[in-house]
Amino acid sequence: MLNIRRLSANEAGFREELDNLLAWETVSNQSVNDIVNEVCARVRSDGDAALLEYTAKFDRMQLETGAQLEIPKVRLQQALETIPAAQREALEISAQRVRDYHERQVQDSWTYEEADGTMLGQQVTPLDSVGLYVPGGKAAYPSSVIMNAIPAKVAGVERLIMVVPTPDGEVNEMVLAAAAICEVDAVFTLGGAQAVAALAYGTETVPAVDKIVGPGNIFVATAKRLVFGTVGIDMIAGPSEILVYCDGKTNPDWIAVDLFSQAEHDEDAQAILVTQDAEFADKVHASMTKLIETMPRKEIIGTALKDRGAIIVVDNEEQAIEMINIIAPEHLELSVDDPKALLPKIRHAGAIFMGRFTAEALGDYCAGPNHVLPTSRTARFSSPLGVYDFQKRSSLIMVSEAGANTLGKIAGELADGEGLQAHAASARYRVKD
Amino acid sequence: MLNIRRLSANEAGFREELDNLLAWETVSNQSVNDIVNEVCARVRSDGDAALLEYTAKFDRMQLETGAQLEIPKVRLQQALETIPAAQREALEISAQRVRDYHERQVQDSWTYEEADGTMLGQQVTPLDSVGLYVPGGKAAYPSSVIMNAIPAKVAGVERLIMVVPTPDGEVNEMVLAAAAICEVDAVFTLGGAQAVAALAYGTETVPAVDKIVGPGNIFVATAKRLVFGTVGIDMIAGPSEILVYCDGKTNPDWIAVDLFSQAEHDEDAQAILVTQDAEFADKVHASMTKLIETMPRKEIIGTALKDRGAIIVVDNEEQAIEMINIIAPEHLELSVDDPKALLPKIRHAGAIFMGRFTAEALGDYCAGPNHVLPTSRTARFSSPLGVYDFQKRSSLIMVSEAGANTLGKIAGELADGEGLQAHAASARYRVKD
Repeated sequence: MLNIRRLSANEAGFREELDNLLAWETVSNQSVNDIVNEVCARVRSDGDAALLEYTAKFDRMQLETGAQLEIPKVRLQQALETIPAAQREALEISAQRVRDYHERQVQDSWTYEEADGTMLGQQVTPLDSVGLYVPGGKAAYPSSVIMNAIPAKVAGVERLIMVVPTPDGEVNEMVLAAAAICEVDAVFTLGGAQAVAALAYGTETVPAVDKIVGPGNIFVATAKRLVFGTVGIDMIAGPSEILVYCDGKTNPDWIAVDLFSQAEHDEDAQAILVTQDAEFADKVHASMTKLIETMPRKEIIGTALKDRGAIIVVDNEEQAIEMINIIAPEHLELSVDDPKALLPKIRHAGAIFMGRFTAEALGDYCAGPNHVLPTSRTARFSSPLGVYDFQKRSSLIMVSEAGANTLGKIAGELADGEGLQAHAASARYRVKD
Repeated sequence: MLNIRRLSANEAGFREELDNLLAWETVSNQSVNDIVNEVCARVRSDGDAALLEYTAKFDRMQLETGAQLEIPKVRLQQALETIPAAQREALEISAQRVRDYHERQVQDSWTYEEADGTMLGQQVTPLDSVGLYVPGGKAAYPSSVIMNAIPAKVAGVERLIMVVPTPDGEVNEMVLAAAAICEVDAVFTLGGAQAVAALAYGTETVPAVDKIVGPGNIFVATAKRLVFGTVGIDMIAGPSEILVYCDGKTNPDWIAVDLFSQAEHDEDAQAILVTQDAEFADKVHASMTKLIETMPRKEIIGTALKDRGAIIVVDNEEQAIEMINIIAPEHLELSVDDPKALLPKIRHAGAIFMGRFTAEALGDYCAGPNHVLPTSRTARFSSPLGVYDFQKRSSLIMVSEAGANTLGKIAGELADGEGLQAHAASARYRVKD
């Protein structure tokens, strides 16, 4: 049988075992920190010269000038026109569905006026410019371009700059095609910490941006942490996770492969089945044992399931919900008859896949919602990537003469209480009576 | 004359001088990092025992048991009933106005259904629990309690836990009264890194929370960075800033004191006047020279204006707007006839105070919008603290049988393109034709 932990929620020591299973901390070791610090400092001071040097060193690409780092738009269009028609169509439908969904997230400015004529509100504006990091080489994901670029464009970001390394000159045509579909404004062949530094500080060739998003390896993640404050960043993602809750009535082969679909991402990925049906747990275990042999990425899947996977048998639906809220999974599948009835009880999950037909993989590619989701229990306090990550707000306060008279007294009282007399004076200068 | 830099936007070297003036990086030195690492590790492993030890050491408070760390609710109510009536009324009006404003920020769940019966949407829920750090001792600010607690409560956070140090037993009655007004659920006499660690990891007495907000010194800020990921945090604020843009027609005394009202926060605060009227610049300079003598915090104000303040003379309104968007100030005063006309051109500012009657200080205390705002040019990509910081979203995806048939093919095509065959299989199991 396939090697995966079997747990019962009522066993002694269960909660401790679960906590150990869920524990995950991304730690950048000192040597990674040192390299990233040096690379970022060099790019900040030497600009393009440093980029050309690091691209030669890390990606084995010899370029003469900064200008050669840019992939011209005509090249993106060419990729779009030469990939197979089925791929192009799938990318275009995916982009359109993601756009349709995200358009519903756009937030508008608002104001209201009080009786004395004072106006209050919030002005919502798009970020000016955003950098999108796309990993290169073998794990190049066009879906990641769509999921990061579309919300930025829907928000109204005017300069969306993509960086993607092309190690040994290897270019992913689908990634370039996706950039064309998403109307990315410029693409540079850059990766690693040097790409992040270029986007944060700007060079002769690469324009500085206001926020950097997109997935990357430990060097990219460490560089993003380093430049945070100079620019905004999205979350630093941990390994991918899925929790499937099934009442026992879905085809066990379907559930087995749903679990595989996250486990295949990498050896640290986490796939957990929760069910109140112990026999069904056996069936899924048997399906996994049978089906893993058909999976090209079976080594990765096997390691992930052995090290971080689990089948958890619970007493009933109530206990299943309790598990879900403790685990706060990135992806939650509710493979049950009436998933809508469970929604009000689910407090923490990045995305909720409802019903037996909603494979998690549909959400990764084309259902519409974003596939950039909070991992490692951070769904307790954070949200999927969305248009709101590319908009920002400014408070609006326009106090009338009468309003200044009323509010000035209150502010003066409180400022006195805090010992901030210039605040008090500033407020009271506008008080008439 | 008061010592403040006078700049003209058309001088040679102006932009470099401006960049130097704006530069600000919060750096935790190694000794702070070492102390914070040790304190957090000790609290994580030893719980209440570590809290009692550090509270004795840093706040000179000898307590016997963890339970003594809690300030009972009856004590909060007592503070509310014993502070002067004018203070109580001012706090209550402030809280009510902040509540009214923030209620307009509440976001609701939404869904929509597609032609084939597929349902998509987003479920919005409050965070379960939030920790609020309030500085103690002399710089204890009740307004900070209101500005952090009210948005959390409006969002629906059920457990709002406040920590406030009481060094040498010194308690700020207005802070406790504000906690009573805001219906904070529990208050502990804790400060520094140990308070942050207690909120992040939980102890026998202090419950672990999902997010920590509120201002603090370098130890608090460093601890917040350290526990980020285990819990959410708000932004790490830099020094306070104000940019006043005035057309020259506001009373120069008013503008002088508006500039003082930020400069008095601390020596690193930044106050900048931008005007196209060079004579008005002189008048404000003269007003500052005259009025600083009346300010109890004149030493701080003088140092802040000398080190980080500026009066910038520009050619015209267009150039003033350009300055505003480069500086991206935390607080922006538009002291002009028609501030509404300028709004569409202002891309970056934490809060915009419009018209001659809107002293920035009104926004600090009682106008309604939040006073926790992005500093150090981060208004380019971040927003005032709001209800949205205490809500989170889960994507909803419920694909119909027909939808699975269509979407399964698209997802399969894209998963193949990315070499993720388990994803493809999972999607295709639900395809019928």
